Amino acid sequence: MGYADLSTPDLTALKVDLEDELSQHKAHNLALNMARGKPSSEQLDLSEGMLTLFKPGETFLSEEGTDCRNYGGLEGIMEARRLMAVLLDDEPENVIVCGNSSLTLMYNAIGRFYDFGARGSTPWHRYDKVKWLCPVPGYDRHFLITESFGFENIPIPMNEDGPDMDEVERLAASDASIKGIWCVPKYSNPGGVTYSDEVVRRLGYLRCAAHDFRIFWDNAYSVHHLYDEPERQDQLLDIADMCKASGNPNRYVKFSSMSKVTIAGAGIAAMASSPDNIAEIKERMGIATIGGDKINQLRHARFLKDADAVAAHMSKHAAILRPKFELVEQKLAEGLRGVGGCSWSRPNGGYFVLFNAPKGTAKRIVQLAHQTGVVLTEAGATWPGGNDPYDSDIRIAPSLPPIEELEVALDVFCGCVKMAYAESLLIDRLTH
Amino acid sequence: MGYADLSTPDLTALKVDLEDELSQHKAHNLALNMARGKPSSEQLDLSEGMLTLFKPGETFLSEEGTDCRNYGGLEGIMEARRLMAVLLDDEPENVIVCGNSSLTLMYNAIGRFYDFGARGSTPWHRYDKVKWLCPVPGYDRHFLITESFGFENIPIPMNEDGPDMDEVERLAASDASIKGIWCVPKYSNPGGVTYSDEVVRRLGYLRCAAHDFRIFWDNAYSVHHLYDEPERQDQLLDIADMCKASGNPNRYVKFSSMSKVTIAGAGIAAMASSPDNIAEIKERMGIATIGGDKINQLRHARFLKDADAVAAHMSKHAAILRPKFELVEQKLAEGLRGVGGCSWSRPNGGYFVLFNAPKGTAKRIVQLAHQTGVVLTEAGATWPGGNDPYDSDIRIAPSLPPIEELEVALDVFCGCVKMAYAESLLIDRLTH
Repeated sequence: MGYADLSTPDLTALKVDLEDELSQHKAHNLALNMARGKPSSEQLDLSEGMLTLFKPGETFLSEEGTDCRNYGGLEGIMEARRLMAVLLDDEPENVIVCGNSSLTLMYNAIGRFYDFGARGSTPWHRYDKVKWLCPVPGYDRHFLITESFGFENIPIPMNEDGPDMDEVERLAASDASIKGIWCVPKYSNPGGVTYSDEVVRRLGYLRCAAHDFRIFWDNAYSVHHLYDEPERQDQLLDIADMCKASGNPNRYVKFSSMSKVTIAGAGIAAMASSPDNIAEIKERMGIATIGGDKINQLRHARFLKDADAVAAHMSKHAAILRPKFELVEQKLAEGLRGVGGCSWSRPNGGYFVLFNAPKGTAKRIVQLAHQTGVVLTEAGATWPGGNDPYDSDIRIAPSLPPIEELEVALDVFCGCVKMAYAESLLIDRLTH
Repeated sequence: MGYADLSTPDLTALKVDLEDELSQHKAHNLALNMARGKPSSEQLDLSEGMLTLFKPGETFLSEEGTDCRNYGGLEGIMEARRLMAVLLDDEPENVIVCGNSSLTLMYNAIGRFYDFGARGSTPWHRYDKVKWLCPVPGYDRHFLITESFGFENIPIPMNEDGPDMDEVERLAASDASIKGIWCVPKYSNPGGVTYSDEVVRRLGYLRCAAHDFRIFWDNAYSVHHLYDEPERQDQLLDIADMCKASGNPNRYVKFSSMSKVTIAGAGIAAMASSPDNIAEIKERMGIATIGGDKINQLRHARFLKDADAVAAHMSKHAAILRPKFELVEQKLAEGLRGVGGCSWSRPNGGYFVLFNAPKGTAKRIVQLAHQTGVVLTEAGATWPGGNDPYDSDIRIAPSLPPIEELEVALDVFCGCVKMAYAESLLIDRLTH
């Protein structure tokens, strides 16, 4: 039983009640935000020790004896490469640490392929058309990068175990203008999906018409579990292993950053790839930079010494985030009981809950929420070009607001969902 | 009177003496380096206070109330923009602060023009040929950027007041494939030249066949005086003013960084340009990054509050660098007295002394020095493609070595110059 089963008079009466409910919220002049995947102040406080780490008389020497204050060190200091290897699930030797943003590393990687090709292939700017596979719902900033270079973004449906591999295999094998795929393989943005072993295996073994096809493996949430119990921590197969095993060792580039581990704007970013790819990247990177901020690398490596320290630190994040995610689950389950037509994710990690609104209502829900003082991510943002053909996906980001604010925001959200659904059903009945 | 006036027997005897002198140096197993434009440890120590600035309980709020720890702020925090405006000789509103490397900002700027064009112009990758003007001697890393994008680097002779503007004007006006020019307008690398008002004016008013011609204004040494006396501090006209006055307001992009002010690897970099250019840059940059490291921006802005604080800080650098530059002058003047055929710069600021060796001897001098345990910048490095047609320019970088080491290195250098010159004269006489 749900709204769809209600009579038109009952639905109309419900709509009047909902209007009243939203008016009451509006009267409070709310200014709440569930749009942004930002850590809260409380989470940022966890890394205060890193920002106040250095004391007068500090030597700033890396473990290999480099003065981290001076120029040099394109690939980063070894202790930072080792630390980032934890997040990238790779060997320190395959890791380059550079800058504060993995998004920038991805943009630059696309830029290099566009300008110069990949390992001797034709520079991609020479093609009339380059296409890119985009599992949806996905991360809008990924899609913007490939769109900005004029690529055609092709949506690929996400299943519960990752992208629809039948579709990926069919397209990659048949069209040489398809040059790669965006992947957030663990606790994906926004669906919270972790790719199954089978999906990772099929990606590694993918038959591609383009010999310079590249898997962009944005492991942004690799250690971002919400639960300490191992059985509630998703596990991800290593794409590097699969690419090596399949004889396509240069097919992937992994990315990650400390942005949601330490300080969002002042983390360190890194990538890992095959030795051949890393050599090529370093050759090009060496023209654009003398090296990353080694002082910030040193701060990170001293603050988070190893995988255990990272896990302990992430557990503190989880303790702050978990109640917020559990509140989302509780509020949606209660607030939308008996409504029908909706579903949402219950992720074990990451930063988002994906809400699937009744088809054709997502834009209206976001608009109603906005009018009531609650900012949500734009409906459609999780699709290339902002175009969700079902007008259904809404990304809920519960990390930033304090829990009291989140509670009110979720009440408003549920009211907006119900209102938009009731409206849409009534309009449907009027027009059919 | 000089070596050229000596008889062949005298020259031969001299060569034997010089061989002996260099052998004696070699016996000390020297490992000295005058190649790298790096600050010394002593200079880096001047900014220790910046790296240990934050104390437990710090709020990390910018003056506008932004939590510098979180994401956001593409153009940087206002106090950092104001600080970098001092180095860029511009208004804070025209400044974007981003990353730790102005070289990267330049590479990215070239990359944007290559990929997307400039303010609606044809993307430069679509042209069969793009050319770029390179005042020589100049900075090898500049030349490498344009070379890496396949541009043809065209050498332009440097005069005592800047690039040969007759040549620049002739080329820019006649060839639409010439898209820009590299400039280090103050205390240039390596010549130490500051562009005269007349040169800056002529650059601003330049008639260009390419309507998207761009002046890359790398003001890396804008506050890097060696002397405190105002009359020994070079002054530079503002290129922005000249471009505005000439009706070409979008022709320039200025770059600078804190790398040689605070911490070489962990400074902040910035660029300034016209409001139209800045808007375009931000639109593109916003796809590649969520913003620079605002924590490092805050560190810088609190450590160096304003132009006076910068000047006071640079005066401390000068106190360390000045004796080294004066030692270079003294050692070269003494060591090369009566040799002839050589000249060198006596800059008021910057990081380098340009040595003009007798034609055809620079490579040999660098080789001899290397064999004797003194590393110099590769001969030719100051020319595009590493190709100095006169084999004459050598860049001396006195900043890094302690003064005792510099003294020995300069003795070796003078010995190598004399040796190479004597050899070359003898070979000349044998072959003509």
